[in-house]
Amino acid sequence: MSNLNAGIIVIGNEILSGRTLDTNSNFISKKLIESGIKLDQIRVIQDNEKEIINTVCEFSKKYTYVFTTGGIGPTHDDITSESVSKAFNRKYEINSVAYNILKEYYPKGEFNEGRQKMAKMPENVELILNPETAAPGFVIKNVYILPGVPEIMRSMISNVLKNIKKGKPIKTLTLNVNLYESLIASDLMLIQKKNPKCSIGSYPYFHKDSKSGGVNIVISSWSLDTLDPILEEIKKMINLLGGNWSIVCE
Amino acid sequence: MSNLNAGIIVIGNEILSGRTLDTNSNFISKKLIESGIKLDQIRVIQDNEKEIINTVCEFSKKYTYVFTTGGIGPTHDDITSESVSKAFNRKYEINSVAYNILKEYYPKGEFNEGRQKMAKMPENVELILNPETAAPGFVIKNVYILPGVPEIMRSMISNVLKNIKKGKPIKTLTLNVNLYESLIASDLMLIQKKNPKCSIGSYPYFHKDSKSGGVNIVISSWSLDTLDPILEEIKKMINLLGGNWSIVCE
Repeated sequence: MSNLNAGIIVIGNEILSGRTLDTNSNFISKKLIESGIKLDQIRVIQDNEKEIINTVCEFSKKYTYVFTTGGIGPTHDDITSESVSKAFNRKYEINSVAYNILKEYYPKGEFNEGRQKMAKMPENVELILNPETAAPGFVIKNVYILPGVPEIMRSMISNVLKNIKKGKPIKTLTLNVNLYESLIASDLMLIQKKNPKCSIGSYPYFHKDSKSGGVNIVISSWSLDTLDPILEEIKKMINLLGGNWSIVCE
Repeated sequence: MSNLNAGIIVIGNEILSGRTLDTNSNFISKKLIESGIKLDQIRVIQDNEKEIINTVCEFSKKYTYVFTTGGIGPTHDDITSESVSKAFNRKYEINSVAYNILKEYYPKGEFNEGRQKMAKMPENVELILNPETAAPGFVIKNVYILPGVPEIMRSMISNVLKNIKKGKPIKTLTLNVNLYESLIASDLMLIQKKNPKCSIGSYPYFHKDSKSGGVNIVISSWSLDTLDPILEEIKKMINLLGGNWSIVCE
């Protein structure tokens, strides 16, 4: 088990209304696993001050790292920064470094009130630089505040990951098998029971048109040095059941 | 405000590891809004009994309707049904109707142990029929238990929505505007303040290649009979700022 874990808070009515498909948490989750950090929860909440405050406080206590996306733009519905200030009992004020970055970025006369709002943050935070559109995110305690626009969020994540403590990476292996998962279920359970230090996931798929299906078996472990013996057991089982397998390159 | 609300619980390590992009909650959220039901939260949790129990109990008390996806297949990592039984202090047992549906569906001799597991549920539940692959979901109190494979989950949702109480549909309208959102921020805030019965969302987008951007303004209301006056105010503002707008057909 990685001793570093994380939670993601996606802030935005547009996700809950179905208008926008959230792809940010999937992007971040992949980066975390590459960094040896175990993502324990994703929570999508409304643009609502009380909910943001409660969720940020809960996650900050529970997880090594917390990432929020959304709600740090210039408009009235962007309330993440002010809510996070309240969550940590910090003043919500102009960050002078962020202010100067933004002032520099916009043509003269275009650094308007809305844009100035993007320099308002809790006092005494560290900035997360934004190579795309200047407006920075920030870190407060163990909470990383990122924007919701995917292109911009993605451009900022490498600046975040450069500076955080990473864990031992997870070992993981995926086998594609041409058997229905019900056929392998009982043997797979025995292999899982024999190998408590790894987690064996079974993910069926189903093609509607051809009415055919199969299963991806994902073996993963945060602590084992090799998955080979478990892989061998699973291959043997599949052979005995008359199935075919292939390793999925990921 | 719709007086019917909902929460979605996505159960699955494969979402948290980034292996799978969750599209189920987006699909359900659209169906809910069409049915006049306000989605308040989406939570993605691990295949972990304690977490499933706690989240199902919390959501069942908090929301009119709760939907779970994932974890009702035949393998050892499918622990949703058993965990939900524990959450509601019900026996976890073979549901005879589900058992007969599955027995009927599979060719003789192929209704193996793994498949029989899919008939195990909390006692006294109502089934959600599955037109694709037979294995039913179920309803317990206000909690709707659905599978994680998107094609199968989607095929079952209409059976769910046919039978639940619907709310007055939300009124909603999207305007695409060729201005940066910072320019409209302060006027938009005034319009929002004047119209507390509607919610005005501002969703910027940004094209990396052309370095150009714009904003979608989404006006929505659960209680107003018309959004026309608000639309007129926003159009007037955009015209005054020299921008162009178009209504987005959705």
